[in-house]
Amino acid sequence: MADEKRLRILLVGASGVLGAAIAAELGKRHEIVTAGSKSGQIRIDIADPTSIEKGLAAAGSLDAVACAAGAVNFQPLGAIAPAKIEQSVYGLGLVNKLMGQVNLALAARDVLNEGGSITLIAGVLADTPIVAGSSASMVNGAIECFARAAAIELPRGLRINAVSPTVFVESMEGYGPFFRGFEPAPVARAALAFSRSIEGRETGKVYKVV
Amino acid sequence: MADEKRLRILLVGASGVLGAAIAAELGKRHEIVTAGSKSGQIRIDIADPTSIEKGLAAAGSLDAVACAAGAVNFQPLGAIAPAKIEQSVYGLGLVNKLMGQVNLALAARDVLNEGGSITLIAGVLADTPIVAGSSASMVNGAIECFARAAAIELPRGLRINAVSPTVFVESMEGYGPFFRGFEPAPVARAALAFSRSIEGRETGKVYKVV
Repeated sequence: MADEKRLRILLVGASGVLGAAIAAELGKRHEIVTAGSKSGQIRIDIADPTSIEKGLAAAGSLDAVACAAGAVNFQPLGAIAPAKIEQSVYGLGLVNKLMGQVNLALAARDVLNEGGSITLIAGVLADTPIVAGSSASMVNGAIECFARAAAIELPRGLRINAVSPTVFVESMEGYGPFFRGFEPAPVARAALAFSRSIEGRETGKVYKVV
Repeated sequence: MADEKRLRILLVGASGVLGAAIAAELGKRHEIVTAGSKSGQIRIDIADPTSIEKGLAAAGSLDAVACAAGAVNFQPLGAIAPAKIEQSVYGLGLVNKLMGQVNLALAARDVLNEGGSITLIAGVLADTPIVAGSSASMVNGAIECFARAAAIELPRGLRINAVSPTVFVESMEGYGPFFRGFEPAPVARAALAFSRSIEGRETGKVYKVV
């Protein structure tokens, strides 16, 4: 085997359960630049496009941008009224997890080294609804389809994929009541999907982690 | 066979290519109340939640709400900059085709007769990207996943499905350059999918029309 190239990877949401697992997996072989809205070497609030662009500029040379961040509301459908995005229960997911990651991808497109990769986080609710999960379902589906679509238009050999995991073993204490009957996966398995996206050569893929 | 019940169906986007085909198919057996932002018996601008709620109140007793309306921007990815939703190329699709239909569904949930149905319009770009189509891909994917998710939480036996058609024979003059190599489907076939959703009993389905 040829020597692997040591990559410089910006990891947004590095302090979370998933982010820490990605850093543990990829940090063995590559340089991780940690980013987050409240911690990390670089501060990036994905809900704010200016924060994204400043953060990427501060990060310097990058071979990969990976996102393990994104907020959505969980609310029973019966408690959701019609409203404009700014006032809607759906607004958080659309502004933060969806457009936050889309804007991160667009900004990464402009600064990544040739052949670099973008990896976004979606989730199982795209395929398998739960009560109170309509916002997550909507947003995760949008992210998966965006990644597939953006892949065919990225310049300079850049790639983009999405990772779509089921609920994590490590998150069951908080999320368990929403996910009764789901078999949780170890978060390390989702980190492997980030590895496939970043260290492989595929683009436009959605890695389902079950 | 038992006599079919004559349904009262609100059709949003009734004046378009798809809307006219749905009206032709379902108007044979049911009462169609036409709606649109610029024409129709009821004026509804789906981008405006107040307009939706007023329109549904004016429509009276309804057994089905079907949507054949929804705007998105088509723009090459390379021409899309990171931006907040209000300033983003993606804003139109998120505000109009996505949240417009989500708000229509939420408002319909509150007024439809028991056992009534909601049918939303998505599209093939959820599965099959084209150049300049990343907004449509994102929005169509979100609509499909929202319909599947909302189905498990609707009250009073209400149902919701999405129709996801390929490009129409009748729309190839305008859309053809975006869809080279796609085999277009007659719009009447998409109208049949609306019939299946409205006259059948399924819920949480995405009818792919190819």
